[in-house]
Amino acid sequence: MNKHKKIGLFGFGTVGKGFYENLKKQPHLPATIEKVCVKRVDLPRIGHELYFTDNPDELLLDPDIDIIVELIDDADAAKKYVHTALRNGKNVISANKKMIGESLSEVDFWHSEFESTLLYEAAVGGGIPIVHAIDGFLRDQEVTKIRGILNGSSNYILTQMQQNNWDFEKALLDAQNKGFAERNPTLDVSGVDASYKLLILAYHAFGEVFSMNSFNAESIENVSKENIKKARLKGKKIKPVATIERLGSEITCTVKPELVSPNDELYSIDFENNAISVDTLISGKHTAAGKGAGSLPTGSAVLEDLKRILNGFSYQVKKESKILI
Amino acid sequence: MNKHKKIGLFGFGTVGKGFYENLKKQPHLPATIEKVCVKRVDLPRIGHELYFTDNPDELLLDPDIDIIVELIDDADAAKKYVHTALRNGKNVISANKKMIGESLSEVDFWHSEFESTLLYEAAVGGGIPIVHAIDGFLRDQEVTKIRGILNGSSNYILTQMQQNNWDFEKALLDAQNKGFAERNPTLDVSGVDASYKLLILAYHAFGEVFSMNSFNAESIENVSKENIKKARLKGKKIKPVATIERLGSEITCTVKPELVSPNDELYSIDFENNAISVDTLISGKHTAAGKGAGSLPTGSAVLEDLKRILNGFSYQVKKESKILI
Repeated sequence: MNKHKKIGLFGFGTVGKGFYENLKKQPHLPATIEKVCVKRVDLPRIGHELYFTDNPDELLLDPDIDIIVELIDDADAAKKYVHTALRNGKNVISANKKMIGESLSEVDFWHSEFESTLLYEAAVGGGIPIVHAIDGFLRDQEVTKIRGILNGSSNYILTQMQQNNWDFEKALLDAQNKGFAERNPTLDVSGVDASYKLLILAYHAFGEVFSMNSFNAESIENVSKENIKKARLKGKKIKPVATIERLGSEITCTVKPELVSPNDELYSIDFENNAISVDTLISGKHTAAGKGAGSLPTGSAVLEDLKRILNGFSYQVKKESKILI
Repeated sequence: MNKHKKIGLFGFGTVGKGFYENLKKQPHLPATIEKVCVKRVDLPRIGHELYFTDNPDELLLDPDIDIIVELIDDADAAKKYVHTALRNGKNVISANKKMIGESLSEVDFWHSEFESTLLYEAAVGGGIPIVHAIDGFLRDQEVTKIRGILNGSSNYILTQMQQNNWDFEKALLDAQNKGFAERNPTLDVSGVDASYKLLILAYHAFGEVFSMNSFNAESIENVSKENIKKARLKGKKIKPVATIERLGSEITCTVKPELVSPNDELYSIDFENNAISVDTLISGKHTAAGKGAGSLPTGSAVLEDLKRILNGFSYQVKKESKILI
């Protein structure tokens, strides 16, 4: 815990505001938001005491800014900002699952190339500290399988179909109205969003970068009222399950609607909640569950990453290639 | 990561061997077991390369030993060793739930009194990193409730009663034969063991030391075959559930057999597995599950504490009273 750190924040949407609110509640933390880069500086906002700009370089080139927190939607812009920040010796926190998931080869290179630290807990599982757990707690154990519910929108939709006997379209509309699904829900319901997250987890579990092409993703769009009813009659539920499994040198990755029984740890995970189970050779199966999205849980995951950076923490996947532990 | 550290290990039973085995698999860690203190040095053992002694002072007074790892059964002796080690400037890892749970007021004092660090992840939940999670991830959020299955023996017994239609005595005998329950099972089945663990978690969640007297503990001995059968007919299970809840200034603590339905996250936790759910105001409910006991999971929890010490980590509950973060 050294000198007070200055933060440059990209994005002031749902997660950005959650991070700002959470940080305000912890005045003892030696870090302050110095500048915020947004697309439109003229919009009315909370956070009047903050300095807003629409020029990324005001943050990236400012030698006084120690830490960049990247919470924007645009994956291409995010990648550029994160790369520049790391190159300029700034530590970086990102919540961009698409950018991290799509760019894992670069991320792996950044980890080994730059002294600065890049953390992205909020990119997977919202408030569940799963990247940290897999990277730190399980990294030195052999992981054989990761299986979970990694997409809150899909789980919310299937839960509402199950509980109200709705069809997919009606449940999707409800999820959109309540803010649990995007206007364009394709990334979520198709399994692509969950695949990105699984790629990130697999990278930290296995230390290897897998490609999106290795995935077998099946949309939940084709789940019918009848499928759900049949499942219910058997005492089961249909859940959006993402799995990556290693058998010898063979790796299989799937994201698909799956029939789940009450003795399965995913059965009780309803609505927008996420859960992740990790099978390890030494210490068996570990499961973690919680809110997978939302302003405050995700903002709190970003805040945890900030504390880790203030404490000098880096991912083991990075350290492996550089120093001892 | 500085110089190579020397470890003094107390105890070479199940957990001690698990720790030793796990540490051997991580030769990159800058720490080695220097001396082991056991009751009987004349017994044949694995670990021929180790130096065994029956004199605690050979470890506690050796200025070359940096870290004491305490993995013995005797809570009174453990307390003495841990206190002496901390006073002598050594960092300490303990897995002794009875000692930590019974001595929380002293533990709290030790945290603030001594520069040296005391960690005890393995005292609660075996391989589940729950003390660390509650202390680090949740400490700055308001925790409202902790609920879980914290005793593997009780859960194993109730699971076998449920699955095989056995009565308590038969299931207990089976648990003892398979090593999932002690010869004297009172601490486990009465709820006292789970109460100790809950006390430790509550201390890290609320930053307060509660007394064992605040607990309402009910034994699982009185659960009958008929109770289990009735539960099954309703599609439910009976689980050994420990709960601590805060409502305003009111705290309630219970450990008792509880009727649990499939939508409850504890329903799928069978046999010797443990699970813990933490309700927070900001980020909702977090659940973690995994093997609650056993040589390797617990040994691996001790190893994680070792890594934390090597990285300079201390509990926030300690830091709160001393430094900023």
